[in-house]
Amino acid sequence: MIIDFASAVSALKSAENILILTHANPDGDTLGSGFALLRALRAMGKRAKLLCGDTINPKYAHLYEGVESDSFEEEFIVSVDVAERKLLGKELDEKYGDRVDLAIDHHSTARLFAEKTYCEPDSASACEIVYLIIKALGVPVTKEIASCIYTGCSTDTGCFRYSNVTARTHRIAAELIEYGAEHSPINVRMFETKSMSSILFERLCLDNLEFYAGGKVAVITATLDMMRQTGADKSCFDAIKPLTRQIEGVLIGITVKQESKDTVGVSVRTGEEYDASAICAHFGGGGHLRAAGCEFKDDPFRVRDIVVKYVTENVL
Amino acid sequence: MIIDFASAVSALKSAENILILTHANPDGDTLGSGFALLRALRAMGKRAKLLCGDTINPKYAHLYEGVESDSFEEEFIVSVDVAERKLLGKELDEKYGDRVDLAIDHHSTARLFAEKTYCEPDSASACEIVYLIIKALGVPVTKEIASCIYTGCSTDTGCFRYSNVTARTHRIAAELIEYGAEHSPINVRMFETKSMSSILFERLCLDNLEFYAGGKVAVITATLDMMRQTGADKSCFDAIKPLTRQIEGVLIGITVKQESKDTVGVSVRTGEEYDASAICAHFGGGGHLRAAGCEFKDDPFRVRDIVVKYVTENVL
Repeated sequence: MIIDFASAVSALKSAENILILTHANPDGDTLGSGFALLRALRAMGKRAKLLCGDTINPKYAHLYEGVESDSFEEEFIVSVDVAERKLLGKELDEKYGDRVDLAIDHHSTARLFAEKTYCEPDSASACEIVYLIIKALGVPVTKEIASCIYTGCSTDTGCFRYSNVTARTHRIAAELIEYGAEHSPINVRMFETKSMSSILFERLCLDNLEFYAGGKVAVITATLDMMRQTGADKSCFDAIKPLTRQIEGVLIGITVKQESKDTVGVSVRTGEEYDASAICAHFGGGGHLRAAGCEFKDDPFRVRDIVVKYVTENVL
Repeated sequence: MIIDFASAVSALKSAENILILTHANPDGDTLGSGFALLRALRAMGKRAKLLCGDTINPKYAHLYEGVESDSFEEEFIVSVDVAERKLLGKELDEKYGDRVDLAIDHHSTARLFAEKTYCEPDSASACEIVYLIIKALGVPVTKEIASCIYTGCSTDTGCFRYSNVTARTHRIAAELIEYGAEHSPINVRMFETKSMSSILFERLCLDNLEFYAGGKVAVITATLDMMRQTGADKSCFDAIKPLTRQIEGVLIGITVKQESKDTVGVSVRTGEEYDASAICAHFGGGGHLRAAGCEFKDDPFRVRDIVVKYVTENVL
């Protein structure tokens, strides 16, 4: 059932012994929402605990600093920033997926798995919503809560860069700074630190950056060997994807990634003139207008040649 | 003479035939301030024109789109974001440097070269100040003015990332979005586009990235030849400077740059544990606690060895 803001607030007001669930592969928004809510509920004298299906990257340590663990039988379960139950991760989904009392979310693709769902698809982050809920609950916004909320506001918007940012996002950020959110150190940790693997992987990727069609097409081909050699993981690869398209003059950016011995994933990013999803649809894939993908069972360099040939001969 | 906000507003209110000066090597803040003020003054029925000592990068085209040039004898000269007269650039300094009626600035290092100076060192950008002046002048904030102001607010704060951001910065950004500032396309142009030279130069720099002291020290050595080979300019090099220090585990990041055949500039960036200015002071240089520099007359690779030896043996 979809509920309104006031109902979400009153559900939390009357809840006791609360379990908060974040999504697996956790980011700053789900963790910021979860720990801000946990801190607020505890400040109201309630018992609250948080579970996440994956280990939490230590760069988010400021979110749970000073939060003591608690163990009790949960009576009320709330999920934050979880668009569908399988995103809880296998273990938490099996254990709690059909028992969530309240889902607080901001995804336009949200599935209604919880008993009650409060979703604002126009909100840049779940943290914006949790912030307004905390204020409506009458809990004083401490410096720690402000830093949790700020983390989600900042990470889900690429530090206020993306098109999902609204005037409300900035107004909330202003209030958070006044409440003592440590915005600058948080941003350094979230945006200005690259892992050694990531930088070594980026170096290998740039080494095999190639241009076609007079610089209109740029391609990076990443092999399993490159990943192994540098210790790169999925997040290192995700960081590379936008790179080709960001180069001045490049209209179509292609990143070819060897996923396993015989599977290759292709990510296509386009500027305003071309349709990435149409390019990928030609190869049985799909996605968005400016960012799409497709898969092959082949050698990565042969895949590169096939995609480049199609793009330069049939798309440009 | 230092004046207050109200006096700056009234000086502009009574001014006619106004010349606006930006600093040379222009950035989003000086240009955003200049063109926002020009648009506002013209909306008041005044004649206004703008001069910049250097050519303007076409990525700033949205700032002056639709602004027609005008030619008249200037009666009032105002500079925006110009901390000292020599920053006007040689030509504009010679012609106007001692005739500036009003300087609007936000640098803590501002020199009082104009007849009147209004400076807010706590303001994250000159654009924030110009915005408040425009509102005080009673000029309606158009979408174009909002986009000009937003550009300076965003570029001078690394898109709301740096420690100079205040609650006011975010509140102004919120209002600008409501006035129609095209925040997302502006941020794409300002932050997500890399020149071909810049990416090729970055590739060569990453190729010679070296680690010392078990990864605590990272060094990039950039030669004139690398700059020539890729067509890189000063801005490409500036983009590289923070890179070494951003790598996880690196405590001291060093970038060695061959400036000319026999001059080498060294940039040192440190984490919280080390003092960059002390390291550079040892070699006759200086700067800030976390970012400093020094110069050598030597070969870049010999300089690299000298600095690395000092840092690993005497600093770590």
